[in-house]
Amino acid sequence: MSSGKESFVDVLVVGAGPAGLMCAFGLARAGVNVRIIDKRPVKVAAGQADGLQPRTIEIFQSYGLAERLLKEGNQMHQAAFYGPNSEGGIGLIERVPDVAASNARYPFEVTLHQGAIEAIFLDNMKAMDVQVDRPIIPTSIEVSSDPSVLEDPESYPVKVKLQHLDSEGQRTTETTENTEIVNAKYVVGADGAHSWVRRTLGIAMEGEHTDYVWGVIDMVPDTDFPDVRNKTAVHSNNGSCMIIPREDDKIRVYIQLEECDAVDSASKRVDKSKMGPEKLLEVARKSFYPYTFRQPKEFDWWTIYIIGQRVASRYSVQDRVFIVGDACHTHSPKAGQGMNASMRDSYNLVWKLTHVLRGWASRSLLKTYEFERRHYANQLINFDKKFAKLFSGKPQSELNMDGVSHEEFLQAFQTFGGFTSGIGVHYEESSIVNTRYQHLAANLTIGERVPPQILLRAADGRPFDIQDLLPSDTRFKVLVFTGDSSDPAQLAKVTSLAEEIQAPGSFLTKSSFGKDMLEFMAISSANKQSVVYNVIPALFRSHWSKVFIDDVDMTGKQGGELYSSYGIGPSGAVVVVRPDGFVGTITPLDSAADLTSYFAQFTA
Amino acid sequence: MSSGKESFVDVLVVGAGPAGLMCAFGLARAGVNVRIIDKRPVKVAAGQADGLQPRTIEIFQSYGLAERLLKEGNQMHQAAFYGPNSEGGIGLIERVPDVAASNARYPFEVTLHQGAIEAIFLDNMKAMDVQVDRPIIPTSIEVSSDPSVLEDPESYPVKVKLQHLDSEGQRTTETTENTEIVNAKYVVGADGAHSWVRRTLGIAMEGEHTDYVWGVIDMVPDTDFPDVRNKTAVHSNNGSCMIIPREDDKIRVYIQLEECDAVDSASKRVDKSKMGPEKLLEVARKSFYPYTFRQPKEFDWWTIYIIGQRVASRYSVQDRVFIVGDACHTHSPKAGQGMNASMRDSYNLVWKLTHVLRGWASRSLLKTYEFERRHYANQLINFDKKFAKLFSGKPQSELNMDGVSHEEFLQAFQTFGGFTSGIGVHYEESSIVNTRYQHLAANLTIGERVPPQILLRAADGRPFDIQDLLPSDTRFKVLVFTGDSSDPAQLAKVTSLAEEIQAPGSFLTKSSFGKDMLEFMAISSANKQSVVYNVIPALFRSHWSKVFIDDVDMTGKQGGELYSSYGIGPSGAVVVVRPDGFVGTITPLDSAADLTSYFAQFTA
Repeated sequence: MSSGKESFVDVLVVGAGPAGLMCAFGLARAGVNVRIIDKRPVKVAAGQADGLQPRTIEIFQSYGLAERLLKEGNQMHQAAFYGPNSEGGIGLIERVPDVAASNARYPFEVTLHQGAIEAIFLDNMKAMDVQVDRPIIPTSIEVSSDPSVLEDPESYPVKVKLQHLDSEGQRTTETTENTEIVNAKYVVGADGAHSWVRRTLGIAMEGEHTDYVWGVIDMVPDTDFPDVRNKTAVHSNNGSCMIIPREDDKIRVYIQLEECDAVDSASKRVDKSKMGPEKLLEVARKSFYPYTFRQPKEFDWWTIYIIGQRVASRYSVQDRVFIVGDACHTHSPKAGQGMNASMRDSYNLVWKLTHVLRGWASRSLLKTYEFERRHYANQLINFDKKFAKLFSGKPQSELNMDGVSHEEFLQAFQTFGGFTSGIGVHYEESSIVNTRYQHLAANLTIGERVPPQILLRAADGRPFDIQDLLPSDTRFKVLVFTGDSSDPAQLAKVTSLAEEIQAPGSFLTKSSFGKDMLEFMAISSANKQSVVYNVIPALFRSHWSKVFIDDVDMTGKQGGELYSSYGIGPSGAVVVVRPDGFVGTITPLDSAADLTSYFAQFTA
Repeated sequence: MSSGKESFVDVLVVGAGPAGLMCAFGLARAGVNVRIIDKRPVKVAAGQADGLQPRTIEIFQSYGLAERLLKEGNQMHQAAFYGPNSEGGIGLIERVPDVAASNARYPFEVTLHQGAIEAIFLDNMKAMDVQVDRPIIPTSIEVSSDPSVLEDPESYPVKVKLQHLDSEGQRTTETTENTEIVNAKYVVGADGAHSWVRRTLGIAMEGEHTDYVWGVIDMVPDTDFPDVRNKTAVHSNNGSCMIIPREDDKIRVYIQLEECDAVDSASKRVDKSKMGPEKLLEVARKSFYPYTFRQPKEFDWWTIYIIGQRVASRYSVQDRVFIVGDACHTHSPKAGQGMNASMRDSYNLVWKLTHVLRGWASRSLLKTYEFERRHYANQLINFDKKFAKLFSGKPQSELNMDGVSHEEFLQAFQTFGGFTSGIGVHYEESSIVNTRYQHLAANLTIGERVPPQILLRAADGRPFDIQDLLPSDTRFKVLVFTGDSSDPAQLAKVTSLAEEIQAPGSFLTKSSFGKDMLEFMAISSANKQSVVYNVIPALFRSHWSKVFIDDVDMTGKQGGELYSSYGIGPSGAVVVVRPDGFVGTITPLDSAADLTSYFAQFTA
């Protein structure tokens, strides 16, 4: 390669969509030296993905970003189902919770156009002096194959050539002025379904396209349809539609199409010249009869797509280049999974890269990214196959007894609720997921995110959601469930644990162990009248605000269900929460050795 | 008067403490031409008032300011009581809710230093291009006594001469450069306990000083006392103290003093040379024994004061000059009322001034300011006398059976809870408080603020607190409780009401009636399965978001108690909420005439 500038960076992120921005934002927040590039001259303004699932909102909250999201976005609390009625039109069957999972902290989805979601990251990155370099494309990438280079924490084994495009986003002749070399410790390809990074590194997509063709229009509706502000699935004898209400007064309508109407018969690809938004609305009107939709003043956005369900064969090359988001998996948009799964890929990767770059974790930690996220993507495709089939099927009726019944559709909707909300995502046993002592907190599933619960701060009785004690600050949280700290015998056990953890041989005394790698907190089952917060050993309360109790608050309206809902008994337990809010392991209160073994699996 | 510049302004606010800032902010938010001056060269940085009561937090929320307040401030959820124990020291008696009122939306107080609270107003005013002019003092004020001028909406009957001070806040020789004349339609004196406006206009303070002398220190404590983060009242045989935890790790300690220790025996005034913060801490230590307080690195602030309990004999001159806040009432700070009462004076006045200035209301509306707020101040003084006596009294013990028992103190604390939280404040019958139809909503007290309750938006099932439908946007809110709108007979009544309200002779058709003076909303008792939001008459739903239902939300955890908790029956009712969130009146669903009579009392 010959080029003008040459530079070094810890992480180069290619692509500034939701996955790339979550990655760059998360790394920047962790203080990692990161650069992010994108081929588009300006950011997306409308359309594209727009739904955030409950777990994704929790992640935004863990970064302090949820407040703005909730202010700007629309909240979908209800799903309505319409089916054929006896008069040849459609009628309301029922309204159900939009989120079927029972332990969602945010029991709704947020809809907001992709540009506004990206702006949340961009504005917060700007405050940290990280901006998207654009328009730029990578034109070549080389990854060292030398094991000693690959394993050297100080090396930059990935060399990427970049070309700056002109202001229209067009490629011009390569010159030393418009090209540069970036040497990166790590590269993250977040460059979408047609990922250049993936294709250039020869990673295959496995899976297939379906026959389901859908159209999408975004508009402010002028209608008498009364469920235009709910997520509404319409199964009529004249086609299927789905409404997704949006910010301001906008809605998105997904419209099932006949293949012949929108697909080029030779190439089998979508032919957008066959149909515009007006024609899509015309198709939709047939499903909505007897309700009417007048022609809107304008369509904000529209598209037509064929559902494809594919997963990348691997997510990494040498654990030095990773792909995230649409570059790894594509599926139907109607269950609102794409952008969510993509951002959560990055969220899973960010803390692992950070710990390795800081020298806290061994490089083997990075293997858990593909292990955890590719498994999830496969589950997602399986779910999507079932859901798309039900959704695209004809409704059951007297003339069509083989059709999809409302009960069948609703059951699928609810069965998959934990999964589609993102809060039922489960990571299998690995170097960072150890389930040996699951029985100590039977309902706090190791490998899943910590479910919301209210506890009280011991010193002042202020209620908190436990999730807010687990911010995305790259630290492991070691929650010492002390049992009843006002019982001297129980307190003695807690004191012993603190001593053991500080004794030679414990993980905490290992020289490579970063002192900011974890934070201790104590959660006592003492009540608010008897608790004395400052009897807890100093190791477990670096500040008065780090001791909590499981009791109802002074209003009597919340709290007091933490131990019981998690299934933690009076002997207590130690719960290790990963930096991404997932339970990593649980150990007995009397065994510092088990904590030491857990951290030994992946720390440097 | 002779002076350089001469200008005209709708409202001149004198004094930029909490009362003055709430006034100027509220007026600016309403789009009123307002100017605010202050004699201090810079704003307060520490100390002084620091507690916000539940009702005051509700007001901040109604302006969209609560989020920042809750982020920056400390929350006090618990009050702890310590009394003499058998070993000669003190022991915990019990911990109780800090807020004793049952229907507080925010069941806690927020503590934050006055400068930070003022900054919330200042930053928001800055965004509206209103800043405090400082350092400036008024040197003369003249109010016209000509009735035709006073009643003329276009006149500027108040002439105030201002002098600009030097950068140290010192007065220099008057010149045409440093003086100016302001002609104001209205002047608000928010210039504190020693109010120049009040004294210059010859308004007397009525009441007296007490013998109770208290010291105050602000610090980050170094202590083993376990209730340092609760509001803690300590009654020992060696004196009384009170802890108020603050933002960051700070606390404020109120310390009871002997008169001889801090008061000049000749002048009977506080002599701060007799005691510094170190000596105050020494006095406090005696009360806290056996707990210890080490000398802190520094004291953030300290003072010594004698409790005075006085109310101004009137609150206005010609209803053209008003006084608010400490200028009208002084009392003990320990129940945390001063700043709250002061800001709420302004909050009461702001919408009235706005409606008169816009030509919507007759000037008689302004009389309700003194009527409502002076009555409240007198109640406050009466409460304060009882509370201060209990607080300053010796604890009951075997040696002192006449002392104040814990039960007596706690009972007072709880009895006054509704009052001290600000949410039990009750305005009497007047031109804007009409209680004739109280029975239609027996538990929604006319003359009190609308208590929080969850309702659902009909179109999308999203839960809201009813208080959030009542923002401080200067509009009356007319809440049409429709009964069950899915019952055709009931819906017909609602439709009739809409027609009557739009018929000639109705208040709405009066030419002087500002179309932005009120907003209609509909609240149906239909359930979330049957409701069809767009059957509600168009008058009551200017937007799809203006129709609500009283039902439990999709999680089953909240909502569905609105009609029952307010005592509204199936026939419905119309509830008129004043711009300050207080219930103005309630009328039957079948009587537009009663609405017309209500508004006729005070509209222009």
